Amino acid sequence: MLQARDGLDLVARDLAAFRDRLAVLARQHARTPMIGRTLLQQAAPITLGFKVAGWLAGLDRTAGRLASLRRRGLAVQLGGPVGTLAGLGERGPEILRRLAEELGLPCPEFAWHTSRERIASIGAELGILAGQLGKIAGDVILCMQTEIGELREAVAPGKGGSSALPHKRNPVSSLFAAAAARHTPHLVGALIGCLAQEHERAAGAWHAEWSLLPQLFGHAHAALLALRDTFEGLEVGEAAMARNIGATQGLIFAESLAGAIAPQVGRGEAHRLVEELCRRAVAEQRPLADIARDALPKQVPGLSPEAIRAAFDLARHVEPAAHWVERLLAQRGSREGTD
Amino acid sequence: MLQARDGLDLVARDLAAFRDRLAVLARQHARTPMIGRTLLQQAAPITLGFKVAGWLAGLDRTAGRLASLRRRGLAVQLGGPVGTLAGLGERGPEILRRLAEELGLPCPEFAWHTSRERIASIGAELGILAGQLGKIAGDVILCMQTEIGELREAVAPGKGGSSALPHKRNPVSSLFAAAAARHTPHLVGALIGCLAQEHERAAGAWHAEWSLLPQLFGHAHAALLALRDTFEGLEVGEAAMARNIGATQGLIFAESLAGAIAPQVGRGEAHRLVEELCRRAVAEQRPLADIARDALPKQVPGLSPEAIRAAFDLARHVEPAAHWVERLLAQRGSREGTD
Amino acid sequence: MLQARDGLDLVARDLAAFRDRLAVLARQHARTPMIGRTLLQQAAPITLGFKVAGWLAGLDRTAGRLASLRRRGLAVQLGGPVGTLAGLGERGPEILRRLAEELGLPCPEFAWHTSRERIASIGAELGILAGQLGKIAGDVILCMQTEIGELREAVAPGKGGSSALPHKRNPVSSLFAAAAARHTPHLVGALIGCLAQEHERAAGAWHAEWSLLPQLFGHAHAALLALRDTFEGLEVGEAAMARNIGATQGLIFAESLAGAIAPQVGRGEAHRLVEELCRRAVAEQRPLADIARDALPKQVPGLSPEAIRAAFDLARHVEPAAHWVERLLAQRGSREGTD
Amino acid sequence: MLQARDGLDLVARDLAAFRDRLAVLARQHARTPMIGRTLLQQAAPITLGFKVAGWLAGLDRTAGRLASLRRRGLAVQLGGPVGTLAGLGERGPEILRRLAEELGLPCPEFAWHTSRERIASIGAELGILAGQLGKIAGDVILCMQTEIGELREAVAPGKGGSSALPHKRNPVSSLFAAAAARHTPHLVGALIGCLAQEHERAAGAWHAEWSLLPQLFGHAHAALLALRDTFEGLEVGEAAMARNIGATQGLIFAESLAGAIAPQVGRGEAHRLVEELCRRAVAEQRPLADIARDALPKQVPGLSPEAIRAAFDLARHVEPAAHWVERLLAQRGSREGTD
Repeated sequence: MLQARDGLDLVARDLAAFRDRLAVLARQHARTPMIGRTLLQQAAPITLGFKVAGWLAGLDRTAGRLASLRRRGLAVQLGGPVGTLAGLGERGPEILRRLAEELGLPCPEFAWHTSRERIASIGAELGILAGQLGKIAGDVILCMQTEIGELREAVAPGKGGSSALPHKRNPVSSLFAAAAARHTPHLVGALIGCLAQEHERAAGAWHAEWSLLPQLFGHAHAALLALRDTFEGLEVGEAAMARNIGATQGLIFAESLAGAIAPQVGRGEAHRLVEELCRRAVAEQRPLADIARDALPKQVPGLSPEAIRAAFDLARHVEPAAHWVERLLAQRGSREGTD
Repeated sequence: MLQARDGLDLVARDLAAFRDRLAVLARQHARTPMIGRTLLQQAAPITLGFKVAGWLAGLDRTAGRLASLRRRGLAVQLGGPVGTLAGLGERGPEILRRLAEELGLPCPEFAWHTSRERIASIGAELGILAGQLGKIAGDVILCMQTEIGELREAVAPGKGGSSALPHKRNPVSSLFAAAAARHTPHLVGALIGCLAQEHERAAGAWHAEWSLLPQLFGHAHAALLALRDTFEGLEVGEAAMARNIGATQGLIFAESLAGAIAPQVGRGEAHRLVEELCRRAVAEQRPLADIARDALPKQVPGLSPEAIRAAFDLARHVEPAAHWVERLLAQRGSREGTD
Repeated sequence: MLQARDGLDLVARDLAAFRDRLAVLARQHARTPMIGRTLLQQAAPITLGFKVAGWLAGLDRTAGRLASLRRRGLAVQLGGPVGTLAGLGERGPEILRRLAEELGLPCPEFAWHTSRERIASIGAELGILAGQLGKIAGDVILCMQTEIGELREAVAPGKGGSSALPHKRNPVSSLFAAAAARHTPHLVGALIGCLAQEHERAAGAWHAEWSLLPQLFGHAHAALLALRDTFEGLEVGEAAMARNIGATQGLIFAESLAGAIAPQVGRGEAHRLVEELCRRAVAEQRPLADIARDALPKQVPGLSPEAIRAAFDLARHVEPAAHWVERLLAQRGSREGTD
Repeated sequence: MLQARDGLDLVARDLAAFRDRLAVLARQHARTPMIGRTLLQQAAPITLGFKVAGWLAGLDRTAGRLASLRRRGLAVQLGGPVGTLAGLGERGPEILRRLAEELGLPCPEFAWHTSRERIASIGAELGILAGQLGKIAGDVILCMQTEIGELREAVAPGKGGSSALPHKRNPVSSLFAAAAARHTPHLVGALIGCLAQEHERAAGAWHAEWSLLPQLFGHAHAALLALRDTFEGLEVGEAAMARNIGATQGLIFAESLAGAIAPQVGRGEAHRLVEELCRRAVAEQRPLADIARDALPKQVPGLSPEAIRAAFDLARHVEPAAHWVERLLAQRGSREGTD
């Protein structure tokens, strides 16, 4: 439990630093437009800061749960062979209390030789943390694809580049984090499987725990350090982000456009009209905005050119995204120190 | 999330009832002697109440973590396709807040379309709960072994008995709980593996979640209901417990005996002497107490017959065990309602 | 075991049809150039047929192992309560043999009430199959990304399209396969965990098996059917593939270029020279081929313009790729019917 | 793959030796009566040899599948960055063939950079092997329970004994095997999860494999070595086995007894009668055989005393059990060398 405590402290410290790094990045890019993607298809614009803040909000919650486990989930283990401390006679509880005091660990209310949910819950939270870090790593890897080019890990001597393939910028640190996150779900499963401990001391399950929890600490922490490297000097390809947003002739604004004319013609008809315009934009390889500007006024009486232009206004997506980021950062600031 | 909330409420209610049942049993048998077993070998005496209280203490902690998740781990999900609620313009945050209010769910600080640690942490706690229930089921199954006979599930029509093998009292309910606990570790692993969700909406991992969390609720709750049946009318074989305690000619008191003479002859010599006596007890099939009474006074000058007798006093194990049980129950009582 | 046999037959039939579909596609596109990607970065050209043939070769091997399990991994189960068939007296083995004959299942050499590797190995192979299908689904999903656009699932009424986001072509079938493949690794783990069965009939592990193996059949078969839909009418974006190959100013041929001049200047110097040219290509936004044509003849005496041109010849990648595809298809043809 | 080959050879060698050890034990104790247990309840007699032969038959099958993988599941890996070996021009296939020859490994029909079912299937079989060894270890641990006492690991200096608790004979080696078997199901799950590899080289899943397969080799082999120690000098408690068979006043023969009188009175009535006698045996603490001898002749006209006695004849269970053992050993003998 002392190692678990020290491990939790180490993870908490490095996680706090990483979350601070993400907070800085979220603030910096709160208004840097980027396409949002669902099912790996372009969906609607967000900002890079919004994406980063989404990662951050999840890590904040996990940091909170880890802090709560640090305060309440640990306990001294001392109970003699079967947990009664009978060998110490009446002094058992007092000696246990003093040991807990000395070690700076909570005193358990009862022997937990084979009641191992403390171990399992710490392991589960580490697995969840690693999973979240793996998600971030995965997003970075996807954004680093040659054809996307929105993010790039910094080049360092002996890292990421390839002398023979100089166009390659491998997601070296991110993939270490992603690899670590492949190990942890199963380690958590194994640890939870080890809850089935026989009587007052298990024959096997207890022994398996010994290496499972340290492995979870190791992988979670390794993922954290690897991702820290990813974000150190991470290059943000704002031009690529803009290029990708523009890659579909403005079709990503189709939903906004339909929303703009729905008041006049009804939701169903609005969709039908916009779908038709989209088909033409694809067929004629012309921007949807131009087609809409030419065709819609005749089809939707009373629709102003401003309303059409507004539907293609990136700011209508950027501002709400930035607002959420600022809200989150403000809340974090006011919560500071109360974790 | 509404289903998750209702599921958590259902589990909490049935878990509370089950913990109350265990508390009653622990109190009832706080002083019912039973052998404690480590590595499935007889080790030293405990009481049945002590065993039950150990299960209970673990379930109390998990109930606490589940209650904390119920309060803080849920959140409304509403964010439009990519989480910005851009389609709602400036009213997005307000509409989200009102929806949360209406549903009686916490309002999330940020969109969590692909930040799924809420789902994973609920799943993990359910897996831990099922694992603990599986441990209890496993202990009951082991205690119900024909050769042990310390516990017996009640016979009900169509349950547990076997017309052809009337000596059999199958652990029917316990084995259902044990079977359920075989499923849950892996479901938790799968759910944590699903944290790796791409961008703003995952292609696959999100969809896999849909059945994983309900399965975890299902198995955890099924284990709970099955164990409730186990403990309804559970027969306690006090005579079998006493017989098993006496099965080794008193060798289970060897440690106490060594402790009794250590002050006179030193720890090492005490062990050597007792080991020798134990070998004789096994070889001669005589109670260790008798052999000690005859042999030790000559070997350890100044050792009183009372001290020897006291080493074989079951109460020296029962009282500390009962004390821990009472302590736990008292703490539970005073904590009532503050969960 | 009858269900397992029927399940294996069903999977084998649908898998054979799917493999045939892949074989047709591999043949069709044996020479359709496509960029090969490592660590999600463009690496060197392959062909679409080569990619498909790689999937196919793996599925062929798994089909072979499944067929072998179908022949040798099944067995009748009949053994009475503990496996001896003592109740049948001397006729036990004969009755078992006849039952096997009647059911058309192999006769086991020994009772396997708690020796469940038959179940586990069928489950493991199904999990491996689902995993391979998940890899294919994942590749399709990645190739369908808006910015990549190399593959597209066919549009069908009510499938994949989105009226509001007409540019979206969701990988609907692929993501079902990907989701199914998220479940199976853990189910295999659970099933292998169930090998730990007590004595002559397990209390829990045996019961857990009952739902684990059917689930594995279900998910593996679901993934297969979903992928079949993916490939039905799959649109191949040859233009997008060509565009992506050309996206890096020819840097993907840097390795070939270095190989072409290495004989003259040595491997190390060749790399140094090409790296320098690559940097210029990126900086000046000019094709590497042009820069090489202008600069290299001065730096590498005796280097012919043909040698330089040849290094940028796509056919040097396409032909070996196509050769492997044809080799595999030829081997498959000659193996036909001997599976 | 060279390490995988060497690992498979090592496991095969040590597994063969272990299976030979089990075969000797099965032969030796083909007729040593022991109670068979279902759901951890005494069910009907078997023999120790029968139990051991059941373990052996399963391990034989797994050894067969491992041997098949050794012959067909390995392959050289050489393909250049994307698998085409384009850098080697037309000589690619020939160089691959020669490398395979030189290394003594099969030549793959196609590049398998991201078609990893070879790795997964080796891992799965190792996991299955470890699971089977865990089952054996679990049975030994259960049989070593103080109250059962049917098996005992040999005492060695520093192993298994406890100076303070001299009655304890800890299942030290068995529990190591059991602990190893706790790790492997999840490692197999993780490895199968790693089949989802992107394009021509995965970013993370491939890297995770590197440690998963070696861990599986390590745990499976460790379980094998630990169990080898368990069976080295394993003490068989024939007296304890006899005592346990006799522990229920002969109720374990109730099924045989009902079978003996069914021809006269019908199956239903036979069960009713025997159930009644069983109740009396329990209530009066008298052997069921005696009660049957006194009561049945009046209730079932024409029932001979010999028929009643025969129903309690242990040989009727021992002989069929021994027959199966001999059959298996004979088949193994004739198969020798053809594995």
